[in-house]
Amino acid sequence: MSGKLRVLPLGGLGEIGKNMTVIEQDGKIVVIDTGLMFPTADMLGIDLVLPDFDYLRGRADDVEAIVITHGHEDHIGALPYVIRELFPEETPPVYAAPLTAEMARSKLEEHKLLDAVEVIERDCLEPWDAGPFSLELVHVSHSIPDACGVVVGTDHGSIFLTGDYKFDQTPVDGQPTDMSRLAELGSEGLLLLCGDSTNADRAGIAPSESSIGPHLEEAFARCEGRILVTSFASNIHRVQQVIDASVVHGRKIALIGRSMRRNFAIGRKLGHIYAPDGMVIKPKEIDDYPDDEVCVICTGSQGEPLSALRRMANNDHGQITLHSGDTVMFSASPVPGNERAVNETIDRLFHIGATVVTAKDAPIHASGHGYREELKMMINLTKPKYVMPIHGDFQRLVLHSRLAEEVGIDPDDIFRMENGLPLEIDENGARVGDRVKSGMIFVDGLEVGDVEDVALRDRRMLSNDGVFIVVATVSEQSGEAIGDPEVIFRGVPFMDDADDMLDDLKITVGTSIADLAKKVKNSEGVAESELREKLHNDVARFVYERTKRRPMVLPVIVEV
Amino acid sequence: MSGKLRVLPLGGLGEIGKNMTVIEQDGKIVVIDTGLMFPTADMLGIDLVLPDFDYLRGRADDVEAIVITHGHEDHIGALPYVIRELFPEETPPVYAAPLTAEMARSKLEEHKLLDAVEVIERDCLEPWDAGPFSLELVHVSHSIPDACGVVVGTDHGSIFLTGDYKFDQTPVDGQPTDMSRLAELGSEGLLLLCGDSTNADRAGIAPSESSIGPHLEEAFARCEGRILVTSFASNIHRVQQVIDASVVHGRKIALIGRSMRRNFAIGRKLGHIYAPDGMVIKPKEIDDYPDDEVCVICTGSQGEPLSALRRMANNDHGQITLHSGDTVMFSASPVPGNERAVNETIDRLFHIGATVVTAKDAPIHASGHGYREELKMMINLTKPKYVMPIHGDFQRLVLHSRLAEEVGIDPDDIFRMENGLPLEIDENGARVGDRVKSGMIFVDGLEVGDVEDVALRDRRMLSNDGVFIVVATVSEQSGEAIGDPEVIFRGVPFMDDADDMLDDLKITVGTSIADLAKKVKNSEGVAESELREKLHNDVARFVYERTKRRPMVLPVIVEV
Repeated sequence: MSGKLRVLPLGGLGEIGKNMTVIEQDGKIVVIDTGLMFPTADMLGIDLVLPDFDYLRGRADDVEAIVITHGHEDHIGALPYVIRELFPEETPPVYAAPLTAEMARSKLEEHKLLDAVEVIERDCLEPWDAGPFSLELVHVSHSIPDACGVVVGTDHGSIFLTGDYKFDQTPVDGQPTDMSRLAELGSEGLLLLCGDSTNADRAGIAPSESSIGPHLEEAFARCEGRILVTSFASNIHRVQQVIDASVVHGRKIALIGRSMRRNFAIGRKLGHIYAPDGMVIKPKEIDDYPDDEVCVICTGSQGEPLSALRRMANNDHGQITLHSGDTVMFSASPVPGNERAVNETIDRLFHIGATVVTAKDAPIHASGHGYREELKMMINLTKPKYVMPIHGDFQRLVLHSRLAEEVGIDPDDIFRMENGLPLEIDENGARVGDRVKSGMIFVDGLEVGDVEDVALRDRRMLSNDGVFIVVATVSEQSGEAIGDPEVIFRGVPFMDDADDMLDDLKITVGTSIADLAKKVKNSEGVAESELREKLHNDVARFVYERTKRRPMVLPVIVEV
Repeated sequence: MSGKLRVLPLGGLGEIGKNMTVIEQDGKIVVIDTGLMFPTADMLGIDLVLPDFDYLRGRADDVEAIVITHGHEDHIGALPYVIRELFPEETPPVYAAPLTAEMARSKLEEHKLLDAVEVIERDCLEPWDAGPFSLELVHVSHSIPDACGVVVGTDHGSIFLTGDYKFDQTPVDGQPTDMSRLAELGSEGLLLLCGDSTNADRAGIAPSESSIGPHLEEAFARCEGRILVTSFASNIHRVQQVIDASVVHGRKIALIGRSMRRNFAIGRKLGHIYAPDGMVIKPKEIDDYPDDEVCVICTGSQGEPLSALRRMANNDHGQITLHSGDTVMFSASPVPGNERAVNETIDRLFHIGATVVTAKDAPIHASGHGYREELKMMINLTKPKYVMPIHGDFQRLVLHSRLAEEVGIDPDDIFRMENGLPLEIDENGARVGDRVKSGMIFVDGLEVGDVEDVALRDRRMLSNDGVFIVVATVSEQSGEAIGDPEVIFRGVPFMDDADDMLDDLKITVGTSIADLAKKVKNSEGVAESELREKLHNDVARFVYERTKRRPMVLPVIVEV
């Protein structure tokens, strides 16, 4: 009799991003996806957010495989950090479809980890073994080529993790989601379906990616000046369709933005992108062509501060200056949370006099995630015993659960989980196991660390009200002040005309020190910590009374 | 012959918020609206954003009147700051319709300015004089009672500033926008129309406020547990409709949130709100009633961090604990920029198990700003010679300008302006004048100040990477170090295990000081500033090499 099967989400539940799922049996583990999330505005100075993978620490020997479903950052982005933090000696093999494998290698190389890791390409429908598990990729259509779901065969039955998918019947590469294999999984008897919930709030089915091309062509037809199209750099089929529209309208294309150029190169190398000879021009050649013979494909569809388009909108891009007559097409929708940045970019473009076309004006964007009818179709095809919605905030997990109910899954067999809650399955059924550590860890510069880090709390305080540093020199013997205290402040506004206040502050400091000096004189003995605390409190009170703000106050005592 | 007429927007153009317009003739001025804006996430620690009203500084004697069109913060919120900063001695009278006047008084009282200012109530259609101007309020329908447009009569003709408006044909208070007076303005010959552009991007006309009531009732009918409705506290007619739905369904109402209670009280006092006796219960009485006999009206529709609903969603509200079975209705849409905060609130509510109904699920919200057909109707009614769109980001100003063209205004007579650009009109026509100072000023604690303030740049640096403070004690004579330097850091992560780094840092500091001590020995003379600069650079370089971050480095030299 084999042991319990555990399916443990470490990321992607109750949130959008940093997807990571652990599957464990008989002490052996496969990890599906290692994604990251971008920090929100309140995560001051944080570069990236990773799933807390503490559960896997010290278990390097138990991890048989890491499988990456596709090349988006929320599925692949944490890979270098997972490798570096968890597998200092020997790493498990990383499996992926060809494009995803290429992207994984490119990431590992950036982190100087490529030599340490074996990245193994797998074709779909060709199962392989990893410890007690059998693994198999199943092709799905999504907004990046080579996207896959993963079948994990276990002693208790098969699990299917969908990855990100839609049932696009006319994908640009002619390869729809492999419904035959999904149906087969259903007939074979699927134990558990872990399905993408991203669009569980949208009715109907997502528009086909290939429906975008004709709309782009139409939009191109109306433009007399330059055209700029911004989209996700990894959406290689979209880039192809922009190229196709440019061919039809006799425009050269220029690629601006580092990730756009890199993904174009990878896509071309692997045969996912075709552009006729001589069609791609360099950014610096743009001005050599008439406006109506140029199409720029650029990054910045999310209003990212340093992206190509944002810099153009701010008139701050070295290679291209936008002007009235240019048309900027947003072939992308703002990811939730990016609305303000996108709107700001659009407004700057209006100010310049450019024409702006967004997905609200014309159907020039299609989501890569299936809508409600597709989520239901996935369940009906694969006929799972158990359903566990993944990839979504709580709202979407709830809505996906309801869809599962609607298509006839027993409510008791639908599991609304959270990061860190394992689903445990054995011959007696499935149930929620004991919670394990989970959450966020932060990448900050070179280091990876805990969310509890006090640094972030300090940064918040510093960012709200700035910092006051008071350096007091006191005699070691008498405890009396030697000379005037020094006061330094940063991030405290309106101090230019505050000489009076600074003078008063120095008097406050002087009084603090003198108070304690008396105790020293009375031989009561004063610890430096006591003086520091008193100084801190007196200065903080003074500053609050004068400014109604609470900057960080740092007293430094120099004893001589 | 009278002098040029200037219409100078100081706020509300190229942005949403902080509306303020100056009208000037023969050196005399009226100010229409004194609005504020709420800070964005990158304005660290800033409390409020005001229009830069530097243009008015030193001209207290010239300002004949301040007119407030209605009681929303983006029109009235800067009033106490304008009064305090510009009119230290005698203030001009503030004119407004009754509810707006009451709200102005309440604000001035909070700032202890009520005694200094004469707030004068004016009824619509009863003109009065202010210096060389005649002024008149015209009733418009909006999402707050007593909203008005303003007619400013000048020697060159009349200007109409619409305020915020919609052409609601069935407003809850039975008082639609005064189309008769608008038509009259048109027949009399209007010189200039300054119109609200907020919804210039929406086709058709805005739904009537009174269409919301029946949908609220329907939504109420489906609820078996408690109902919570969140909306803008100032939307007094919406609150009335929630009360009406509660009456129909036999529910008591409880008001939670300071501004909700305050506006309810003002609305009731002025006769805009009617609730039957005994219907309003205290928050602490909620548990005394069965769930299906309670409706809570609360603040938090924008996901504001400290609002009632946000705290309930975080299970952190003293008076009410939400549970499965509760229904939360968002009778409001997220203001652009608030999407993430609203989504976070909604997701927490889903996590708790509450049912959430938003304006996407049912038509339980109507905008207070007219859509495209209404903006066109306003122009057709008032037949202005010149049009100047106000209240909108650049996108909306452009779209509003196009609407004016569509209804037949000569493109040369449509002025797309910016804050700080005056429109100048005399007998020869209208043209854009010379730019004056404009922009944002910040409220931070007790103080009001300039955006250029270095404090914000410092806060940004502190918030990204924290601060390192190095205190070195050196001999005044020899320049040599006395004792070990002290190193303090805040907001720098992952330093718990960084003893090695701190030791190395102290060595770096020691070397810096020793280097310069040699120069002292050679009698070259070293200024303290030189030592400080060298220390700063050496420490910054060391920290960057070790952490790849650039915290603020503050060296302090204590000479003894």
